[in-house]
Amino acid sequence: MTTHAFERRYDSLRAMVNRRLALLAMTGNSRDLREACRYILGGGGKRLRAILVILGCESAGGSARGALNAAAAVEVLHNFTLVHDDVMDNAVERRGRPTVHIRWDLNTALLAGDVLVGIGYRTLLQGGNHGRAAVARAYTEGLIEICEGQALDLSFERRNDVTLPEYFRMIGKKTGALLAAALEIGGLLGNAKPGTLAALKLFGRHLGIAFQLQDDLLDVVADRNDLGKPIGGDILERKKTYLLLRALQRTAGEDARFLRRLTGGRNDSPSLLPGKPPDSAAARRRLITTATAIYRRAGVLDDARSQIRRTTQLALRALAPLPPSRSKEMLAWLAEKLVSRSS
Amino acid sequence: MTTHAFERRYDSLRAMVNRRLALLAMTGNSRDLREACRYILGGGGKRLRAILVILGCESAGGSARGALNAAAAVEVLHNFTLVHDDVMDNAVERRGRPTVHIRWDLNTALLAGDVLVGIGYRTLLQGGNHGRAAVARAYTEGLIEICEGQALDLSFERRNDVTLPEYFRMIGKKTGALLAAALEIGGLLGNAKPGTLAALKLFGRHLGIAFQLQDDLLDVVADRNDLGKPIGGDILERKKTYLLLRALQRTAGEDARFLRRLTGGRNDSPSLLPGKPPDSAAARRRLITTATAIYRRAGVLDDARSQIRRTTQLALRALAPLPPSRSKEMLAWLAEKLVSRSS
Repeated sequence: MTTHAFERRYDSLRAMVNRRLALLAMTGNSRDLREACRYILGGGGKRLRAILVILGCESAGGSARGALNAAAAVEVLHNFTLVHDDVMDNAVERRGRPTVHIRWDLNTALLAGDVLVGIGYRTLLQGGNHGRAAVARAYTEGLIEICEGQALDLSFERRNDVTLPEYFRMIGKKTGALLAAALEIGGLLGNAKPGTLAALKLFGRHLGIAFQLQDDLLDVVADRNDLGKPIGGDILERKKTYLLLRALQRTAGEDARFLRRLTGGRNDSPSLLPGKPPDSAAARRRLITTATAIYRRAGVLDDARSQIRRTTQLALRALAPLPPSRSKEMLAWLAEKLVSRSS
Repeated sequence: MTTHAFERRYDSLRAMVNRRLALLAMTGNSRDLREACRYILGGGGKRLRAILVILGCESAGGSARGALNAAAAVEVLHNFTLVHDDVMDNAVERRGRPTVHIRWDLNTALLAGDVLVGIGYRTLLQGGNHGRAAVARAYTEGLIEICEGQALDLSFERRNDVTLPEYFRMIGKKTGALLAAALEIGGLLGNAKPGTLAALKLFGRHLGIAFQLQDDLLDVVADRNDLGKPIGGDILERKKTYLLLRALQRTAGEDARFLRRLTGGRNDSPSLLPGKPPDSAAARRRLITTATAIYRRAGVLDDARSQIRRTTQLALRALAPLPPSRSKEMLAWLAEKLVSRSS
């Protein structure tokens, strides 16, 4: 298939997932909760995880239609994590719109997230009983690992000695786990053999890591309108991204001192950087400009790009055991596409 | 069996559940998260929902051991709701200890709650595959209904026209749903026939409503040390309890005006009552004393007691279709015991 054909198929699968998600958002009889769920599930996005479920199922010999509920369920789980993560990260904007706790309030964000987990499981468990327990187990392990990844991420905020291996472990859980679970669930629904199942999971894990590295990179190099949120947010939030941790390894002198102050943790940082992002827009811009310039000088943007390439290669190689199919090709195409994306 | 024998058996089941919960709290590799989970699951409590799973299973002909994981899973789900509800309700104390967001912070409470849902499902899905999908569905519907109930409860805070039927619908979801799910899950694990299953669910729903009414009553009449939290909390928080809603029906003149100000909602109440509980301890005591005196004068404490008796009778009658067994007797004993409890 041509790139154009893959793109058309991706769009058609995404439209299918969006229609299913729109139906899910209608359930529940509390008006506030229903509106918040509709807002969350109607926020667009790539629907990547849902489409991975479908492609995983197809590449094991199953049908897209048979995986649609599970695909929507995985997307719902992903959206639940976004809502709660946005609360924990104090994020004000997501996909160009106010986050749920800003648009409504903390309680709505908390409860809408909670009910989305329930709606996710309900959707996952719809239909027959055959193999549903295994599917539900994979989904559950994805949920637990995401929480563990988020806990690590939060703990990094309070530490100034985070290492790159720790970072990779964290993003493996926070982003890799659900992509791996999505492909595993798809494989299970397609009655994949153990070798195929393992290959799909491994592909998902590597893809997730490459995807998160690309996310870290885009925070600095993307166009604000493409990204749907302000550029440099990770810098202001002092997130322990790949860029920051790698730059700490590759800088000395004044640049290193600046970055060390940046990693000082939210609460115990010395005078130059207050515990929160600077109040004035000018000071925020200055902070982002300085950090970005250091990243460039230290060559860590290029390091990120080659790390992304290497991890994508690992993902592609993981696909080898899969029998040849159009869906296998599309998974490979998708991996390439994701790491060249601009949003 | 004698009451004493039931009590001994309850204690022994509770110890069994507690041991299982202690094991669950060891999972996860983020230290903060693990400690918070251990704190939450180690907080004691009646373990009522877990024991209902076991008794439901036994009364359908199954074994306690075969229901233990599911029992622990239901208890974990209950504890998840407590942690998030305490955030939403700004509760500072639970079972005589600081709540999780007070002891740690909001993020820990949010994330520990989230991971508990995962741990709950993981525990529920352990063991064989037979009938697990049905069990997981019942668990999921319980989760969704609790969220809907909590959403209604929160929406009541912003309204001054809540009716008693609305209140009963809310507590049916917030408290009744999980008790019904607990008994249904037990029944499913014991391979209950449809009639037995329906009887168990109905018993749980009524029991949950009676239980919540008793909770509302205890907020006013309990001993502070028995309750494990301050007396009159519902009054300070202006919760739309049975007592308050019933008293609004049964009062006139000055008493009615006082209560209407109390129901004015958190944000739009007139001068006498600020949006939050009064700052001074003396003012808080005065508020509780006045409201309690009105409740007594209006006879709503007695109304609550007879409503609890009636609902308990409905629960007991629901048990009729169950085949005779020691566990059926114990369910009846438990229903009586719960509505005469002091904490």
